[in-house]
Amino acid sequence: MQVILYMATTVNGYIAKENNETPWSDEEWESFSKFVKEIKNIIIGKNTYDIMNESDEFSKIGNPFTVVVSKEDFAHNSNFAIAKSPKEALKILKEKRFAKALIAGGGMLNSSFMKEKLVDEIYIDVEPLVFGKGIKLFSDNNFDAKLELVEAKNLSKNTIQLHYKILK
Amino acid sequence: MQVILYMATTVNGYIAKENNETPWSDEEWESFSKFVKEIKNIIIGKNTYDIMNESDEFSKIGNPFTVVVSKEDFAHNSNFAIAKSPKEALKILKEKRFAKALIAGGGMLNSSFMKEKLVDEIYIDVEPLVFGKGIKLFSDNNFDAKLELVEAKNLSKNTIQLHYKILK
Repeated sequence: MQVILYMATTVNGYIAKENNETPWSDEEWESFSKFVKEIKNIIIGKNTYDIMNESDEFSKIGNPFTVVVSKEDFAHNSNFAIAKSPKEALKILKEKRFAKALIAGGGMLNSSFMKEKLVDEIYIDVEPLVFGKGIKLFSDNNFDAKLELVEAKNLSKNTIQLHYKILK
Repeated sequence: MQVILYMATTVNGYIAKENNETPWSDEEWESFSKFVKEIKNIIIGKNTYDIMNESDEFSKIGNPFTVVVSKEDFAHNSNFAIAKSPKEALKILKEKRFAKALIAGGGMLNSSFMKEKLVDEIYIDVEPLVFGKGIKLFSDNNFDAKLELVEAKNLSKNTIQLHYKILK
């Protein structure tokens, strides 16, 4: 199973403002939404789940099968699972025979997948913004990674999508 | 005078590892060096000055006129000035009739120029690397900025240069 991380960031690598605000462009939302609809699943952390749930975002991205990595158990339905670890999240999706898994934040979740070397590809939609403070793409953790640029393409005049493979 | 910030970063917005290591590609160094040789000046912070001085980097980039923004005074020559603030740094270069000023780190210096809305353009050479921890392109400060993408071009197969104007 191919494991893909997809996030939008500012030019300086933030995935949100400190207050979780994500003022991304329509073109970015559209690209992300299309991506999720193709892959049909999403792995997220508990904070991201709460934010997406509050703004009714799951229906906007086609109600993907959702795996939340969380130590905490909470109410859920048949289109939803809780995993205690990144590896367990991938195991759940493999058992459901998904060809690809989509990791979509937040920073702590992204970082834990990178630390365990579980990510194969990264898509970053670079928005034409700088935040003076914000939430990092990868929260601080002990890992480094080398990438290979697969493609850089414009999603709009000012938003560019960088697609990388992770070298292992 | 046009004020340009030029830095190399990882995909997640770091300009160096925590230990100041910058394992950038030859193509990136070459592009930066060429840029400095054209503009013929550089504005940097004291830490960056010390790092560049130690590795004899000034001669490699054509011995640009160097302005260090620092509260501290220290030995210097006629090709060198100390400024107490970002604005004073620009004033010094204006008086010397430079057409462009080049801001080149580190994160605290970059951030203080952004906070005071003194930057006109940004060049970011995005290296195909992720650091789990590092030094941010802009150290935490209270500002946000909107940009316009001027150009995205490959410096090599895996290194992409993003060139932005800052909207004011």
